[in-house]
Amino acid sequence: MNKEDFKKFEKLERKNKGLINLNPIQAGGKLTKAAENALIEFGDGYSIYDISPGLELMEMPIIKEFIQDALPKFLGADIVRIILGVREGIFIVMHSITKPGDIILVDGNRHYTTIIAAERVGLKVVEVPNSGEPKYKIRVEDYEDLIKKHKPSLILLTYPDGNYGNLPDAKKLGEIAKKYKVPYLINGAYSVGRMPISMKEFGADFIIGSGQKSMASAGPIGVLGMDKKWEKVLLRKSKIYPQQELEFLGSELRGTALATLIASFPFILERIKNWNKQVENAQWFSREMEKLGLKQMGDKPHKHDLMFFKTEPFYKISLKHPKTRFFLHYELKKRGITGIKPGLTKHFKLSTFAASKEELEKVIDAFKEILKTA
Amino acid sequence: MNKEDFKKFEKLERKNKGLINLNPIQAGGKLTKAAENALIEFGDGYSIYDISPGLELMEMPIIKEFIQDALPKFLGADIVRIILGVREGIFIVMHSITKPGDIILVDGNRHYTTIIAAERVGLKVVEVPNSGEPKYKIRVEDYEDLIKKHKPSLILLTYPDGNYGNLPDAKKLGEIAKKYKVPYLINGAYSVGRMPISMKEFGADFIIGSGQKSMASAGPIGVLGMDKKWEKVLLRKSKIYPQQELEFLGSELRGTALATLIASFPFILERIKNWNKQVENAQWFSREMEKLGLKQMGDKPHKHDLMFFKTEPFYKISLKHPKTRFFLHYELKKRGITGIKPGLTKHFKLSTFAASKEELEKVIDAFKEILKTA
Repeated sequence: MNKEDFKKFEKLERKNKGLINLNPIQAGGKLTKAAENALIEFGDGYSIYDISPGLELMEMPIIKEFIQDALPKFLGADIVRIILGVREGIFIVMHSITKPGDIILVDGNRHYTTIIAAERVGLKVVEVPNSGEPKYKIRVEDYEDLIKKHKPSLILLTYPDGNYGNLPDAKKLGEIAKKYKVPYLINGAYSVGRMPISMKEFGADFIIGSGQKSMASAGPIGVLGMDKKWEKVLLRKSKIYPQQELEFLGSELRGTALATLIASFPFILERIKNWNKQVENAQWFSREMEKLGLKQMGDKPHKHDLMFFKTEPFYKISLKHPKTRFFLHYELKKRGITGIKPGLTKHFKLSTFAASKEELEKVIDAFKEILKTA
Repeated sequence: MNKEDFKKFEKLERKNKGLINLNPIQAGGKLTKAAENALIEFGDGYSIYDISPGLELMEMPIIKEFIQDALPKFLGADIVRIILGVREGIFIVMHSITKPGDIILVDGNRHYTTIIAAERVGLKVVEVPNSGEPKYKIRVEDYEDLIKKHKPSLILLTYPDGNYGNLPDAKKLGEIAKKYKVPYLINGAYSVGRMPISMKEFGADFIIGSGQKSMASAGPIGVLGMDKKWEKVLLRKSKIYPQQELEFLGSELRGTALATLIASFPFILERIKNWNKQVENAQWFSREMEKLGLKQMGDKPHKHDLMFFKTEPFYKISLKHPKTRFFLHYELKKRGITGIKPGLTKHFKLSTFAASKEELEKVIDAFKEILKTA
């Protein structure tokens, strides 16, 4: 194999730099300047060992403070661990506190990886259905009967879900969980780092957040907060290596992403304080979209930047457009806008999180123009 | 919580920049210029979706070529998957092809996470002991009787191990594995990306490599190569999401580390061709150390850059030195050298991989001087 045959591998480039990006998966992961510096500083594999030569990273003062003090306060949790991603965190919780054959309850709006993690553990999954179109609402009261019926080992709530951006009543579900003594996990991939959220306030046992989705961090990384009563179960130690946590395959924290997560943390503290402004933008955007005949599904008035729209007028255009169902993607790109899944015209999701009010106005103008002229 | 209280989080800095670094864990993970560019380009969480808006990343031409064509050729494997790290890869293999209660055979020089991964799966581990001081050799012939006795579900070989840098006869173990039809996994964390290695040539079923340890990549990332006969087991699909691989919790590839792994690949192809030079350097270094009364343990003449030394003379100095057992760390640092675990004086491991011959001469001179003057 020759170096020359793979020269193109050295020139992998992003395509959407400088565009207004509405992709929900990218909206909360843009690095801060401090995180960019940390990224460069700790880019080399295992360079983070420079700040911990020969010692467990957990013992390093700044990392210790971040994980043992700052993150627990931030999440409203007793104990926090760094994870490799939300799905890995969900798997760790399931693998620790349930056993194969157990039943768990999850919301019908859950991410597909929730189902796969459960399947990998060997669990039976019962879903609490949403209310269907147009709100796709999860009524947390619906968990109660299903808890009585199935005696689940775990209940999970996606807060918000990644399709409609709905925020169910997580606190009420906490009361139900306490009443029936069922462990309660919140998937906060789209909330932790975007908006104020507290595990304890919701009465949950576990909360999981995503570095790359919502904490202005390079990936893959996430955070797992827990109630201290789970310490002995979830953080159980190896019998052969009694210092090492079994579920985490040892205590080593690796690399670059952690440095960016730490460096962005002060910024994250600030940005969640401006969450009201984000909700205002989202609601304004939703209203403007509806004026164009594009229908917002899910909670209304909406309380999150992630939104789902039914967009029949674009579908109608696509039927006679030379670029067929990809026309919208091209028309938006021409106008400096990206992040809506190419090929979708009947419906799509987007996030207003990364855009300023001015940029959102541009997006509305673009949709308006495309509807008129295409 | 206030941003101002965490300002220091924004200024996490490396400590060992510009020093000669002998840390085995860091020696093979230094980014190439191309990887540094990829790091910056794809720093934002999920920015890699720019090159795959709305499509599975595996379908992107350059990523597809890397994973489906370049990496299999490089590893001598039929199929390759990207993993989050070596320990996660070992867990995936164990979790897929064994069941709780099974016995597996591993070399006595294995990494501690091999044991923890097995414990997490619920396996019984039998170790093939090394020969003890001074060579700590793994005789692969010793696997044979233990295979007959225990009927293991898997045998594992660490090639080389992370303490002595010993390279056991992996090919002969492949013949034994074939004879008894036992699945055979090679942990190549310190070989894949440093030296030429081929899974097929060794007759192994699985090979695992580390991006951050030996492939000039940011972490956490690794590669898992396998024989195609394991496809249906290891890459088994979700029943509910038939496109998704269960063990990988879905097929999404996340982030920054992957971009650096791809960008460094052409360089890696070149550097393994210079492996002989690395071995020469290591052997020269070992001889010079021995002239100073420092004894190299493990294979001799040594065939890998990772080496373990018994260093009694430094221990004697430490007994009366004001800086006690940390004196060596400080004395080396004064001379621009780092990467030996602070506090160790009786013995330590190091790697010659990242240093030039001139730098290695400096290291020898430093040891000489410290022995004379301390």
